[in-house]
Amino acid sequence: MKNKLPNITTDFSSWYNDVVYRSDLADTAPVRGCIVIRPYGCQIWESIKTILDKKIKDTDHENIMLPLLIPESFLRKEAEHIEGFAPELAVVTHAGGKKLEESLVIRPTSETMMYHMFSRWIKSWRDLPLKLNQWCSVVRWEKRPRPFLRTSEFFWQEGHTAHATEQEAHDEALLMLDQYIDLIQNYLAIPVIKGEKPESEKFAGAKNTYTMEAIMPDGKALQMGTSHHIQQSFGKAFDIAYQDKDGKLATPHFTSWGATTRLIGALIMTHGDQKGLILPPKVAPIQVVIIPIIKANQDNQAVLEEAQKIYSELKQSGIRVKLDLDATQTPGAKFYNWELKGVPVRIELGARDLESQSVTIANRLTCKKESIALTEISHMISKTLDDTQQALFQRAEARNQELTKRGNKLAEWGPILNKENGAYIVGWCQSDACEDKLKSCKATIRCLIATNESPECFACTKKSLGDIVVAKAY
Amino acid sequence: MKNKLPNITTDFSSWYNDVVYRSDLADTAPVRGCIVIRPYGCQIWESIKTILDKKIKDTDHENIMLPLLIPESFLRKEAEHIEGFAPELAVVTHAGGKKLEESLVIRPTSETMMYHMFSRWIKSWRDLPLKLNQWCSVVRWEKRPRPFLRTSEFFWQEGHTAHATEQEAHDEALLMLDQYIDLIQNYLAIPVIKGEKPESEKFAGAKNTYTMEAIMPDGKALQMGTSHHIQQSFGKAFDIAYQDKDGKLATPHFTSWGATTRLIGALIMTHGDQKGLILPPKVAPIQVVIIPIIKANQDNQAVLEEAQKIYSELKQSGIRVKLDLDATQTPGAKFYNWELKGVPVRIELGARDLESQSVTIANRLTCKKESIALTEISHMISKTLDDTQQALFQRAEARNQELTKRGNKLAEWGPILNKENGAYIVGWCQSDACEDKLKSCKATIRCLIATNESPECFACTKKSLGDIVVAKAY
Repeated sequence: MKNKLPNITTDFSSWYNDVVYRSDLADTAPVRGCIVIRPYGCQIWESIKTILDKKIKDTDHENIMLPLLIPESFLRKEAEHIEGFAPELAVVTHAGGKKLEESLVIRPTSETMMYHMFSRWIKSWRDLPLKLNQWCSVVRWEKRPRPFLRTSEFFWQEGHTAHATEQEAHDEALLMLDQYIDLIQNYLAIPVIKGEKPESEKFAGAKNTYTMEAIMPDGKALQMGTSHHIQQSFGKAFDIAYQDKDGKLATPHFTSWGATTRLIGALIMTHGDQKGLILPPKVAPIQVVIIPIIKANQDNQAVLEEAQKIYSELKQSGIRVKLDLDATQTPGAKFYNWELKGVPVRIELGARDLESQSVTIANRLTCKKESIALTEISHMISKTLDDTQQALFQRAEARNQELTKRGNKLAEWGPILNKENGAYIVGWCQSDACEDKLKSCKATIRCLIATNESPECFACTKKSLGDIVVAKAY
Repeated sequence: MKNKLPNITTDFSSWYNDVVYRSDLADTAPVRGCIVIRPYGCQIWESIKTILDKKIKDTDHENIMLPLLIPESFLRKEAEHIEGFAPELAVVTHAGGKKLEESLVIRPTSETMMYHMFSRWIKSWRDLPLKLNQWCSVVRWEKRPRPFLRTSEFFWQEGHTAHATEQEAHDEALLMLDQYIDLIQNYLAIPVIKGEKPESEKFAGAKNTYTMEAIMPDGKALQMGTSHHIQQSFGKAFDIAYQDKDGKLATPHFTSWGATTRLIGALIMTHGDQKGLILPPKVAPIQVVIIPIIKANQDNQAVLEEAQKIYSELKQSGIRVKLDLDATQTPGAKFYNWELKGVPVRIELGARDLESQSVTIANRLTCKKESIALTEISHMISKTLDDTQQALFQRAEARNQELTKRGNKLAEWGPILNKENGAYIVGWCQSDACEDKLKSCKATIRCLIATNESPECFACTKKSLGDIVVAKAY
């Protein structure tokens, strides 16, 4: 048996890294800040992709494939954009055996390339709205990499749209935020707080940045994806102009929105326990593992045949099931391995189970074992998977409620937040000076939310202009 | 109405470029040698991906996501490999605002990165076979770019496997070649010639390179994908060693295999005609377009309602159907547009059709129009799509037979090939000197095939060691 995982309560950070690598989600790569996403992690990303891609297409967007390399001058066309991304760029200076006349950067995001293309494609009001998306990887050189959470190369989708009116762009940004929230809450079983970023945390070039934040079990907030209403200045910088219905030249309004492989990191942290991963059934690469209990001194034929029968039955009914026939591992080692990998349900089947025409079902989340009649398997497995999906969300939501408190003045909750983490909902006058005071507890404004229940700013005596969520951030 | 396409017979090359851009498959990009793949092209690639990904998984391979950037030193570890790829590399020298200690190259292919990981993952005979695949883009700086056919960045899948025995690796390379052939012949409707590359055309680092070649309508051959049995020297260069069943250290045997967005280029050339694309129904983004014939001076309500009904009915039965309601274009302009885009079937529906409870079906391939009773639509559309899929393959195969001739001596067929293109099946003694003589007609050995029906080499009087296919190549 391998070493135990680091303690999830006292050493969450080491626990996280160990789970990532030992459950075979990913491996370290020989390039600084990068990881190799192994088949088990890749299957989770493929599930997320399938769900989100359908939502993107159902809301009338089309996929596109833009070049990986962007002329350096493109980045400089919009002042805020280059200021935000310059320190993170990877630069190609040589290609085809020669020094390039103009260096190319590996896309950190594709607004600039997309807007160059928009200027070719948007000529008339008939060309709007133009709603595009791409699935790709981007590179932003990372000083403090962590697998899935911050990597120098990461995988994502980036949506880019152009609209005739500001209202339409605004609605689009919020529509796509809602698509993300549906994915994250109803498939990944992670509750999120919906809100808007303050000026200081906006995307480089955005007018508004909308966000979903999830509170991790250690009380730190994780940004789960963002949706931006982009500044019209991009249209001017990239010469995007079209004839409106009145024949006048106009500049479109833009959005962009992205969600990344970081979501896999959120899954790991939100649901895992001391034994390893717990994967929500809707995105688990393996929902059920069947382990026949083979013994050296008995005839195992009947057990193996029944296991195969159950495997076929579950597979037929659309369940992602694995039959573990590895003869080099003991059942105990297999239990350990599939628990580490977070498979929601384990079916054990031995000679004694077979005698009573039943199997043993072990629930990864509740750790309970139950004996089930063979005739009941399909039904009970479906029910257990549904229950697990629900229970994971509820458990995370209950924990969020514990971790999220309403706060009054910084002097009261600041020292506690500094020491114990957690999220605070407080009022804010929207001044930079007050925001700055959060440095005293290493926290930031994660987002502005829709309520306005605090009478005063957390740091001064001015009236609050709306509630905010304050927390330390990943 | 837009300008006509260049003449497909007399100016095939201009015809090809114009079709690519005017049918909205792709657009030029502001980076040398790159293209933007637009939604229509992207949808074809997604179809190809879905079909091939299933084949890859059904043959027990798993997907993985490796880093885009590879340390330059990795490429140098295997002598033939770096010699083949050095002139095409794009090199990142700066990242995160600093000059890198070691430059990184953007992957031209991922053998070196994969083999570095293999050395971590393959320790025991139990770890074999290891069968992995990734979908990504790669960069090889291209001197003479052509959209889809040769681009500096292109999209592909690259499979990489490791096996205990040479025989197993050999079988794997051929198994994956057969997966490609099934995709290309039975979905893309393109007949191919299966064979092996001569030494001079092998992948840099391969022991054997297997290939499928298709003969394009202009008589030039297009390599459609390759599958390599890789040299064991990679195992040594990357320190990949495992304990075999007898406890001895052994080096695995490898394969790699890839198919690219070039397949879209092959589709365009193989099936297109003077009006534009003709897409095989199995991969056509839109299989059927419905065009209601709207007139200004009549009540169009009934026509529009029936069109909507037909749309729903076809969609329900799993057909990819588009209802073209664009009010700014005439029916004639729409016909032109959807013919250019190669939609296999067009349904026209006007007031007169409705009176007789029928629609008009226009077949893109045969150019025939037929009146069909409303009650027969689903059935007739399915039949027409099936027929078109078959007919496209048969048409291409018949043309191939015309273009491919058996040849005897170079002196006889060389001058004809030089002038008129086409493929010749001839004998070869397998000497470099004789191969070299093909330069006189700008042709190369496309592949060695399984037959051996020519008694003598095409260039000398030695005995032929097997038939080869000779043609000019894209």
